[in-house]
Amino acid sequence: MSDLRVAVLGVGVMGSYHAAALAERIAHARVTVVSDADGPRAERVARAVGARVEADPLAAIDAADVDAVVIASPGFAHEAQVLACLDRRIPVLCEKPLTLTADTAYRIVEREATLATPLVQLGFMRRFDAEYAALRSLVASGELGAPLLLHCVHRNPAQSDAFTSEMMMRDSVVHEADVARFLLDEEIVAVTVKRPRASREAPPGVSDPMLVLMETESGRLVDVEISGRSRVAYEVRTELVAEHGNAMIGLDGGPLVARTGGVRGRVQTAGFIERFATAYDTELQRWVRAARRGTVDGPGTWDGYAAVAVCAAGVEAVRTGARVPVELAPRPVRAAA
Amino acid sequence: MSDLRVAVLGVGVMGSYHAAALAERIAHARVTVVSDADGPRAERVARAVGARVEADPLAAIDAADVDAVVIASPGFAHEAQVLACLDRRIPVLCEKPLTLTADTAYRIVEREATLATPLVQLGFMRRFDAEYAALRSLVASGELGAPLLLHCVHRNPAQSDAFTSEMMMRDSVVHEADVARFLLDEEIVAVTVKRPRASREAPPGVSDPMLVLMETESGRLVDVEISGRSRVAYEVRTELVAEHGNAMIGLDGGPLVARTGGVRGRVQTAGFIERFATAYDTELQRWVRAARRGTVDGPGTWDGYAAVAVCAAGVEAVRTGARVPVELAPRPVRAAA
Amino acid sequence: MSDLRVAVLGVGVMGSYHAAALAERIAHARVTVVSDADGPRAERVARAVGARVEADPLAAIDAADVDAVVIASPGFAHEAQVLACLDRRIPVLCEKPLTLTADTAYRIVEREATLATPLVQLGFMRRFDAEYAALRSLVASGELGAPLLLHCVHRNPAQSDAFTSEMMMRDSVVHEADVARFLLDEEIVAVTVKRPRASREAPPGVSDPMLVLMETESGRLVDVEISGRSRVAYEVRTELVAEHGNAMIGLDGGPLVARTGGVRGRVQTAGFIERFATAYDTELQRWVRAARRGTVDGPGTWDGYAAVAVCAAGVEAVRTGARVPVELAPRPVRAAA
Amino acid sequence: MSDLRVAVLGVGVMGSYHAAALAERIAHARVTVVSDADGPRAERVARAVGARVEADPLAAIDAADVDAVVIASPGFAHEAQVLACLDRRIPVLCEKPLTLTADTAYRIVEREATLATPLVQLGFMRRFDAEYAALRSLVASGELGAPLLLHCVHRNPAQSDAFTSEMMMRDSVVHEADVARFLLDEEIVAVTVKRPRASREAPPGVSDPMLVLMETESGRLVDVEISGRSRVAYEVRTELVAEHGNAMIGLDGGPLVARTGGVRGRVQTAGFIERFATAYDTELQRWVRAARRGTVDGPGTWDGYAAVAVCAAGVEAVRTGARVPVELAPRPVRAAA
Repeated sequence: MSDLRVAVLGVGVMGSYHAAALAERIAHARVTVVSDADGPRAERVARAVGARVEADPLAAIDAADVDAVVIASPGFAHEAQVLACLDRRIPVLCEKPLTLTADTAYRIVEREATLATPLVQLGFMRRFDAEYAALRSLVASGELGAPLLLHCVHRNPAQSDAFTSEMMMRDSVVHEADVARFLLDEEIVAVTVKRPRASREAPPGVSDPMLVLMETESGRLVDVEISGRSRVAYEVRTELVAEHGNAMIGLDGGPLVARTGGVRGRVQTAGFIERFATAYDTELQRWVRAARRGTVDGPGTWDGYAAVAVCAAGVEAVRTGARVPVELAPRPVRAAA
Repeated sequence: MSDLRVAVLGVGVMGSYHAAALAERIAHARVTVVSDADGPRAERVARAVGARVEADPLAAIDAADVDAVVIASPGFAHEAQVLACLDRRIPVLCEKPLTLTADTAYRIVEREATLATPLVQLGFMRRFDAEYAALRSLVASGELGAPLLLHCVHRNPAQSDAFTSEMMMRDSVVHEADVARFLLDEEIVAVTVKRPRASREAPPGVSDPMLVLMETESGRLVDVEISGRSRVAYEVRTELVAEHGNAMIGLDGGPLVARTGGVRGRVQTAGFIERFATAYDTELQRWVRAARRGTVDGPGTWDGYAAVAVCAAGVEAVRTGARVPVELAPRPVRAAA
Repeated sequence: MSDLRVAVLGVGVMGSYHAAALAERIAHARVTVVSDADGPRAERVARAVGARVEADPLAAIDAADVDAVVIASPGFAHEAQVLACLDRRIPVLCEKPLTLTADTAYRIVEREATLATPLVQLGFMRRFDAEYAALRSLVASGELGAPLLLHCVHRNPAQSDAFTSEMMMRDSVVHEADVARFLLDEEIVAVTVKRPRASREAPPGVSDPMLVLMETESGRLVDVEISGRSRVAYEVRTELVAEHGNAMIGLDGGPLVARTGGVRGRVQTAGFIERFATAYDTELQRWVRAARRGTVDGPGTWDGYAAVAVCAAGVEAVRTGARVPVELAPRPVRAAA
Repeated sequence: MSDLRVAVLGVGVMGSYHAAALAERIAHARVTVVSDADGPRAERVARAVGARVEADPLAAIDAADVDAVVIASPGFAHEAQVLACLDRRIPVLCEKPLTLTADTAYRIVEREATLATPLVQLGFMRRFDAEYAALRSLVASGELGAPLLLHCVHRNPAQSDAFTSEMMMRDSVVHEADVARFLLDEEIVAVTVKRPRASREAPPGVSDPMLVLMETESGRLVDVEISGRSRVAYEVRTELVAEHGNAMIGLDGGPLVARTGGVRGRVQTAGFIERFATAYDTELQRWVRAARRGTVDGPGTWDGYAAVAVCAAGVEAVRTGARVPVELAPRPVRAAA
């Protein structure tokens, strides 16, 4: 079977990382087309990966030399691009968010459900991280009994001043929303946000840090510390508490170094790319393998929709201070193939 | 100066532990009188530590061979016993709770404020634990910037079925209430309790685990997982998050052992005595030293009152599900000596 | 540029792992030919990776559909196979040992030195492990001052009874020999082996565990605990001690799990494949990239020769109990291209 | 029973630490007499602990107000002081070394063996450290099978230039010699010392660091890295390797702190007092309790003699580079009481 010819739409940080991965270290795929609103940037990346530029992303989706699409464009562009891919029946790896609103996301869920097989995989890379996968296996094994609580910490060392509380919810907490659904295997039904006194590192009006509480269908509780300006490092930690045990992931790895002065410690990862580099590649390789068979191997449109709905509730919870229910439309049943 | 002659009121787990410590490994003190509602138990402990039994605790307080009192009797007895000690002007180490209600606790605060010096030290032993002390020093040093959040985990492996959600608040979370006040150096002004789906290890009607949220005067947030039946070990962990760094204490100590089967790990402490054994002795030794000088060296009646008030709010929060304010009466100013 | 067409010689544990990697997750390469003394095994692997079988490994090397060779055959076959590859001027990834004796290994070094570029990369995969690479960077940064000592632990949970003390040296300690040369950037000049009382898990006559001491040119000391039957897990740990600091790698990763009974710990890796899975793939991907440009990107024949020479000294040291010098022939200078 | 009246001979770092402990936090004992060659220092300490000064240590031993003696004088003074205590039949806590030579140490062993009960306890405080005690219990439990190897690291951040390789053996490695005997429960029969390239932090002629190898009666092997000028902190780590498992102690405790810059780590102890503070107090309290009953509760003269003999062999091994046997005289049997 010949290599998967991939169009990469959007080559900012994430898109160019994926493009380079496809060019250098992912088997059975190559980038044939690059598209980006920033023309020179598209040229630069295309040259580096041996692809051509197509200014119009929809034309890229329709191109004869494209078998599959990686969508890493800004969120507002996702809806049209994903729908175009579905129309053409080609596999997609779509970075989060699926779309900007729960309604539009749900329309994609419904549209895809009319097809014989799922075609859209969402870029929730943590599911491909070895530790998250091990934690899910541990839960699935039943060894710890039923899960009860999930404690999450998600800290970024720095963000631009334009990064608002809403964006902390949509761009950062969205990962914990997916992780919670992945580990607990049920939907989130309500979100509450506590806004403690803000760090003086945060711009006026931005609640940083926040504590986000998510409740699941069966009454489990997920708490998330989200910090955008911790000034330390990229820290992502998850502790699952179950009836007969608990498990924590996300403690630091790497050399344990002792230096003059007497501190012994580890250098933490600076950002999400460093922290999840292997997970991104695993995600991409598994998507390529599945895409060549015309399907997906990872979270899908329903997961993308649920995450959008949870974050929308979260944004309202930030604004109102109230507990905001998450109301999901019915999950469509795929028509028999 | 001669040894401090101590009466120990109540010789259950805590009281007998303190009595043995005073007899065996605390300098400048000895137990002269033991009192307990359970006569044979009082006899047993008294014999072991070389003391005499006084059936009536108030008589013990008044005894000529008593310079100071350790109160480890049931909570309902504390009020009368502490007041009797204040009347006699002798130093007290009082196990928590100071009293059963905020009103009665406040009455003790007011009463003690009329004296020239404080005489009552509360048994919040964690303040004497090396790690908590180091954490407080770290906060005080300003190195991490202003504190913002405190994440606490407090798990007991097992409790009797009679141990209700209210008792989890009054007997367990009380420690985190004090720790929060100790580390953040301000009062708690509101409590909210989240009651997720309970573990099937909990008896019907008991919310175990719970997530307790405490807000401080300046808007800092404290979250506490309290688990009474974790089936694992006694786990007490505290993470302080500040503007420029964070610090965690309570990770396991002891030998790191790898065994056949491939798990490498540490045996966790089974209970609070094992975990805080050194802290209890440090607390007692420092109390003895201060008591011989007619004063205290640790948390006092105001700390005891605040803890009772926070727990009372917490109990109401468990019952109602609402955010319950903690309203403290004005802190009395000690009259000039 | 078209994909690298690879012949895999020897498809035991290592060879079949590499073959599967090339087929599934290494970019720009595919397996075209498989060769193994065990015909049915060759057939099985060839079918799985879409390659054909060539019974004679030298014929595989000469095949028209082969651009490069992975040598994972038994050590005695390496010499002829590597020389054949050099004769044909095609790139090689050769699993350790380079050959069975220092003399034959040196002949390969000399032979390769007559070529314009190096063509042989040795399969010392630890150099591609993120932690070893980070440790080397740390040394190179000079932050810790000059290295002085290297403490190594290398434990396998189990070995067959046929695995002798000599094999522990040649097959296991060889990795530490290479790691020491990699981290300290100089040659090993002498080996001493201490044979303490053996574990009763070891068969009669086998010294398991042993302590191997290696001295470097500039007088640094490397100590290695080699255990073949630890009954625990695959444990590989390295601590570098330098003038102003020290650093340790190889502590366990993965979820930190607390279970009923009170042990909190991590499951250790069962074997070298699990422990170094990512390192193997990184090694292979980097070799493929370099091989397509006609060169290597990793340890070469000189490293292979030095490792063989150190292990030969080690084997003699096991036998005699004496300190055995390692005498390396002069390092040939590559003729100008 | 009245308090043990203790003479403290030598009030340098260790002696003054013990004197303060006896005065402030050790039950059932008080310092009555202080003696030190440095008169003003003796005065200072005596005043602080409420004792009187006796210039002549032998007079202090003979004083009517002395029930027991702590010997923390320079090593050369120990022999006469211990013998004087034995003559007077009063209990002794003697800091290491017991004496300066194996012969004189053995004479004390023999002398004490003529008494009905042992009276001399050696100040090997690590035996009273919670982690060492837990490790010994673990060995004794048999859970890990028979011990095979002991890996030790012993690093001091700094030493004066006058601290020679011999002193590193006698003053530092002596602790590992005792720990090895304590954990493995058998004698050390030979010592070899490897002297790698020295740190440039060491003065000319001083081999710092060294690797000391000790062999036990049954063939177990102990390796000790001894570093006197590591420039980091006081690091003491011990790993026991047994037939079915292994266990490590001495990893850092205290808050795990993450700071701006991204390192998460722990501050290590600066020196032996900080590291073993609790062990010193436990040792002293247990000695006091035993001394009041006329006996000891810890390592004795035989342990002191064995340590001196091992270190003497070690010093010769440093000098000669050879494997030096440790030859112990027969262990005397105590005459029936």
